[in-house]
Amino acid sequence: MSAPSKRLIVVGAVAAGPKAAAKARRCDPSMQITMIDRGHYISYGGCGMPYLLGDEIRSSDELRETPAGVLRSPEFFKKSKGIDVLVEHEVTRIDRDKKTVEVKDLNSGAVTEMPYDKLVLACGSTPAPASFPGADLDGVYRLTCLDEAESILARLALHPPKHVVCIGGGLVSLETASGLMRRGLAVSFVARSDRLLFRLDYEMAHHVRKEVEHHHGAVYTGEDVLELIGDEQGRVAGVRTDKRTIEADMVLVAKGVRPNSELAVQAGLDIGTTGGIRVDGNLRTSDPDIYAAGDCVETHDLITGKPTYQPRGSTANKQGRVVGINVTGGNEQFPGVIGNVVLKVCDLNVGWVGLTETVARKEGHDVETVIVPAPDRAHFFPGANTIILKLVAERHTGRLLGLQAVGKGDVTKRIDVATAMITCGATVDTLSNLDLGYAPPFSPVLDPIITAANVMKNKLDGRVRGMSPMEVKRKRDRGDDFILLDVRDDDEYEAQHIPGTVLIPLGQLGERLAELPKNKEIVAFCRVSLRGYGATLKLEANGFADVKLMDGGIVAWPFETEAGKYQPSA
Amino acid sequence: MSAPSKRLIVVGAVAAGPKAAAKARRCDPSMQITMIDRGHYISYGGCGMPYLLGDEIRSSDELRETPAGVLRSPEFFKKSKGIDVLVEHEVTRIDRDKKTVEVKDLNSGAVTEMPYDKLVLACGSTPAPASFPGADLDGVYRLTCLDEAESILARLALHPPKHVVCIGGGLVSLETASGLMRRGLAVSFVARSDRLLFRLDYEMAHHVRKEVEHHHGAVYTGEDVLELIGDEQGRVAGVRTDKRTIEADMVLVAKGVRPNSELAVQAGLDIGTTGGIRVDGNLRTSDPDIYAAGDCVETHDLITGKPTYQPRGSTANKQGRVVGINVTGGNEQFPGVIGNVVLKVCDLNVGWVGLTETVARKEGHDVETVIVPAPDRAHFFPGANTIILKLVAERHTGRLLGLQAVGKGDVTKRIDVATAMITCGATVDTLSNLDLGYAPPFSPVLDPIITAANVMKNKLDGRVRGMSPMEVKRKRDRGDDFILLDVRDDDEYEAQHIPGTVLIPLGQLGERLAELPKNKEIVAFCRVSLRGYGATLKLEANGFADVKLMDGGIVAWPFETEAGKYQPSA
Repeated sequence: MSAPSKRLIVVGAVAAGPKAAAKARRCDPSMQITMIDRGHYISYGGCGMPYLLGDEIRSSDELRETPAGVLRSPEFFKKSKGIDVLVEHEVTRIDRDKKTVEVKDLNSGAVTEMPYDKLVLACGSTPAPASFPGADLDGVYRLTCLDEAESILARLALHPPKHVVCIGGGLVSLETASGLMRRGLAVSFVARSDRLLFRLDYEMAHHVRKEVEHHHGAVYTGEDVLELIGDEQGRVAGVRTDKRTIEADMVLVAKGVRPNSELAVQAGLDIGTTGGIRVDGNLRTSDPDIYAAGDCVETHDLITGKPTYQPRGSTANKQGRVVGINVTGGNEQFPGVIGNVVLKVCDLNVGWVGLTETVARKEGHDVETVIVPAPDRAHFFPGANTIILKLVAERHTGRLLGLQAVGKGDVTKRIDVATAMITCGATVDTLSNLDLGYAPPFSPVLDPIITAANVMKNKLDGRVRGMSPMEVKRKRDRGDDFILLDVRDDDEYEAQHIPGTVLIPLGQLGERLAELPKNKEIVAFCRVSLRGYGATLKLEANGFADVKLMDGGIVAWPFETEAGKYQPSA
Repeated sequence: MSAPSKRLIVVGAVAAGPKAAAKARRCDPSMQITMIDRGHYISYGGCGMPYLLGDEIRSSDELRETPAGVLRSPEFFKKSKGIDVLVEHEVTRIDRDKKTVEVKDLNSGAVTEMPYDKLVLACGSTPAPASFPGADLDGVYRLTCLDEAESILARLALHPPKHVVCIGGGLVSLETASGLMRRGLAVSFVARSDRLLFRLDYEMAHHVRKEVEHHHGAVYTGEDVLELIGDEQGRVAGVRTDKRTIEADMVLVAKGVRPNSELAVQAGLDIGTTGGIRVDGNLRTSDPDIYAAGDCVETHDLITGKPTYQPRGSTANKQGRVVGINVTGGNEQFPGVIGNVVLKVCDLNVGWVGLTETVARKEGHDVETVIVPAPDRAHFFPGANTIILKLVAERHTGRLLGLQAVGKGDVTKRIDVATAMITCGATVDTLSNLDLGYAPPFSPVLDPIITAANVMKNKLDGRVRGMSPMEVKRKRDRGDDFILLDVRDDDEYEAQHIPGTVLIPLGQLGERLAELPKNKEIVAFCRVSLRGYGATLKLEANGFADVKLMDGGIVAWPFETEAGKYQPSA
């Protein structure tokens, strides 16, 4: 006689849950598996919601279908995988001694008790609630789930808003707003931080702000929302910040998400410092029969070694697989994350991975950085677009720490290559000679990330002293006495230049050295700072004492520029 | 008094040469640098020539311009970099004792002697000559240089050919033919190998053949060209192979390239076993004052540890940089390559890196392989396209050895991620949980390369026994007695199926087990083999003795298919 089959209960059926259940089923064909979700829809691509609102995806059904076009309904899970699914049911309590969960039918209110041998918590996350009055007004959304996305869609169809305000400058806010802007709606952003995408270094984030503004989005950073104002019908009519009041007939509150760890707290399971459920390398909680995966867990940063909370659909799926194997007797590890984020903001591709300069310095690393603009494919190939990379490395070891990238060209390939290299602990030297694919439709002859590695090597080897656009901007704002030397040609200057620079085209520099003071700080640049590099070498060879290169040239300079002929100052 | 400045001579001014010269200039502003090339054009993107012929790039000037739009002429090198360039001059001899080179002016015939302190050989490569008669007929090309590309362009404009035959099934042949097919020309391929792109495993190469045939290209593999037939005017009129005669009024002979090592041979420098100039890790030849870089050198395969000859524009540029640093007193290393190739064949993106299954087995590795088709971005995102990956790993260690990929979607990102992982010696485990970027426009929630790693782990852990489409095809061709079990739905079968299969949709498998023999070999599959995997588990759980899964399902099956309703055999 065979042993009675084990009972697995999975709490949550959006991302990590279905993955864990399906993998457990494949590992153990006899297990009794039940998935429970308080929502209506299950197993959907939640990350597709911004594109649904942007009308790039035409129906919420598409987010719920398999690649073969089958709707991932409870019936689908039952029929094709032998997994029972309870929707609109909430697990309200875990009794770890009895190994049961209390389940409430959200329609009838009936409460039942279900036994488990293994329990998986895949409870997901919830957008942070608004900390200001008015969040319950009609027309205020948080994009918590697919049902809410459908409500927004219905509203867009019936009463297209005149002015949308997105509160928060993060990922969800920008992705969703991009969708709404794509529909032609007027959108404003209000963010407490000094930038959109505050996880990017300021000078990189500034390119994102410029893109939003270029698409007629209004951006108010460094502002706190005090309240949402309603009209007599209880509909949202405006957003009052500490600096202004903005008209609004739709408001999206997107101030980050929080792990749904309440059930784990109630059950007395360990909670991490980030608020996520604490798990070990096997994704097991402090109870050996309870595992957790996805947006409700705290994970491990592979670079800093510290706990981190980084909810992602990709991580949820990877963790679901690991848990599915482990609840059926396997021994699979989830090592952690290094913080890869890619997104599209209007027409701009944006990505980052690993540590930014800001975070790396905060973590105590002695860092060097480079900013390199380069075409994403051979510059002569039709459709080539510039991307701007910022590479961060440890100065004394050359170890790669992070990459940020923005541009209309292919950003994600470079972010993913950096992900692989950083995960493997590779150095700038290895990256510099990495045998990346080259063909004109796909890459320049030296991939932009290799060019970035080469510039980094020049800096680490002391061949060049660089200064980031941010540092240059700060020096100018402070009124430091230095020369910002543009070595491009006259016509390039006339088309666009940074105000207050001195123009000496590189080809004339040799004859015009006398125009420059030998003992003042000179920061040279050109379009992307290759000619600028040549200029610094020429100046140094001619005895100029304090010569630096502005990283990335005018292409990477995100701040003010103007057009017109050169007007030498007196 | 400062020492007299050193003299650097660089032989060759297309890719590695200009890079070495420019880098040397940046490292040593006082060096006297002369670049010498026998050709007319210098410093151009040779890899862009197929796209010039395909009319995607409109003028050969575009291949010679900097990203800022300046023509890289001898005057440009002189003015902006202080580098002297002699074009239409050939270095005919090296005198290593006197440290001079003999230079012949190809226009006047005058010969001079020039002294050097350091010499760089960047002589490039030459397309292999035809081994059959008729190669000197009018209308026969080898695409040796940009001048020849211009001749072809002129001919296309004046006398558009009715039928082009490309001899050779390699990279240059396919890229160039794709360009010509894009112009609407009729193209045939003749290749001695049994496939186009013989460096790919057969089943992957077969997708390339299907793409060419889909675009009305004729493909004759396993055929030897015996002669090119000419008309009375000395113009090419046909290609005679050992099997047929093909009409042709233009012929491209593209049977690989050979390193230009003659000068090195004459000078008594060491030549490698592959025919390329032998260099050490600093890219120094057997003479300490002579360096070599680019298509004329033999390099080192980082996986096999063996010498290899893999001419690439990207490698040439990396090596040029290394040499430019080393000839000015630096100590830079070029570690080697792992054989990354990416190209576009009609609308199909194709790439490979590291070892194929064929080569890995030949090298003595105990290998496991998986074939995984997956969408290149979220399957619900507009424009998502399928790509097919074949991953090769070492069985006992899980070490990644190679990746091949084909598809209309983004192939190069996955090839480059694999490049990074293989270079770092990573295993399938690390790849499986790699924190790659996820957003619907860029990737499915689990990147295809992660799915491939997961399937590989299932195989290495013994969770599934796989069989490649190639093995299945061989078994069928041999007449082996086994059941090829399709577990897709009826309508999927009707739209397209592999002839001679048994159809039992996965949802009906439980009730219809009696239709299958318990002791015969059964190979299950579906669309991509996820349902197929479910079927193998169900069959095994029900006591079927010999159950396997066909890798990649019908999407990865490149061989014969048909449409129509299911007709059970008697």
